[in-house]
Amino acid sequence: MPRYKLIIEYDGRDFVGWQRQDNGTAIQELVEDAIARFSGESATTIAAGRTDAGVHALGQVIHFDLARQWTPGTVRDALNFHLKPAPVAVLGAEIASADFNARFSARARAYLYRITNRRPPPTLERGHTWWVAVPLDVEAMAEAARLLVGEHDFTTFRAIRCQAKSPVKTLDVLDVRRAGEEIRIAARARSFLHHQIRNLVGTLRLVGEGKWSTDDVVAALEARDRARGGPTAPPDGLYLVEVVY
Amino acid sequence: MPRYKLIIEYDGRDFVGWQRQDNGTAIQELVEDAIARFSGESATTIAAGRTDAGVHALGQVIHFDLARQWTPGTVRDALNFHLKPAPVAVLGAEIASADFNARFSARARAYLYRITNRRPPPTLERGHTWWVAVPLDVEAMAEAARLLVGEHDFTTFRAIRCQAKSPVKTLDVLDVRRAGEEIRIAARARSFLHHQIRNLVGTLRLVGEGKWSTDDVVAALEARDRARGGPTAPPDGLYLVEVVY
Repeated sequence: MPRYKLIIEYDGRDFVGWQRQDNGTAIQELVEDAIARFSGESATTIAAGRTDAGVHALGQVIHFDLARQWTPGTVRDALNFHLKPAPVAVLGAEIASADFNARFSARARAYLYRITNRRPPPTLERGHTWWVAVPLDVEAMAEAARLLVGEHDFTTFRAIRCQAKSPVKTLDVLDVRRAGEEIRIAARARSFLHHQIRNLVGTLRLVGEGKWSTDDVVAALEARDRARGGPTAPPDGLYLVEVVY
Repeated sequence: MPRYKLIIEYDGRDFVGWQRQDNGTAIQELVEDAIARFSGESATTIAAGRTDAGVHALGQVIHFDLARQWTPGTVRDALNFHLKPAPVAVLGAEIASADFNARFSARARAYLYRITNRRPPPTLERGHTWWVAVPLDVEAMAEAARLLVGEHDFTTFRAIRCQAKSPVKTLDVLDVRRAGEEIRIAARARSFLHHQIRNLVGTLRLVGEGKWSTDDVVAALEARDRARGGPTAPPDGLYLVEVVY
């Protein structure tokens, strides 16, 4: 039974997230429906990142099994045909080995968080970026971010309902840069806690506004208490960029 | 009576274009309504570029007069408040001299046309780019574009209903570049004919596909006949980037 690996791009704005839920359309649902329509088989997909409602993907990776062997190009084109008009596209398809698991084989996940830091609201990028009207000090944010890199107990930045066994994660990259009116925060780790990036970004914003010092960030991290962390940044600016195997 | 000059950004997707029309909402209407709500005065706006339905702006320029003198920052912020939730934002406001005219004082207009050249359809950029699934030869397109630069009779690339007095225009820039999956066509001139850029882009696509040679483009230009030009590219990929005074 061949196993298929797909790279998927989507606009998360109108969806409840990757995973099936009762309260609206999930991207998983659209993809599994498209698989059924094209192949006549019903398959369950496993994704590398269970992106939340409103979160986007430039390189989500999923796998699923079908009884029949198709050429990867056929799978890609047939799924893109059946996914229309949803803003979800298969960028690439390949046959994976039977032991490949999109979720558990991942060695690293790379995310991008985009902030539009200007007084006028975004127009073309609405829903695709977090609008912060007050000027942010990117240097201070970058310095605070550097202190968060490495292996830490990230309880302070973990959603209360997070189901991970351990709050200890190793953050390999947390890089803050300005590109004109945009602030781009790149994050990379083997895996993340639920809401970890959005909670980190919400905290970095406090540093950028001058409300928090880098010492405050370290104290919050060391407190291991979600109540001591900054607010959760909205999903709009978050993108799953790449999954490395 | 002070004259105000504004720089405006908008997502053209849901509008009939800049100019008021009977068949839907125009950006002009939203801006003039916002001016009335904030100032209590009714003003008529004049824009540098009368962008068509679905065309976007990163730097549209308009002017209008009000009896009362406001500080430019107040005008910008008040209009952005009253424009909510439309995807239209005032990026900058200033007091202009009484003889400034957003349309007639313009020395140059710069546009960008974005093509997403890949097999899977766009998702996040839907409505903001022209999807061309067949691979395009950007070098050939760039070479053809160079032959169109300069002063020419652009009748071949002019909409039948174009109201310009003369079909002769001087195209200062028509530059085609690839940036990953995207092809970016930059166009600059003092002014353009109606649909000129979209007709040029539709023709360059034929060159990129190998259906037309550069000689075919020159022959079409010299024919001075709209029926000899390529099809009109969709509005989705077109952006008014900057107006120079």
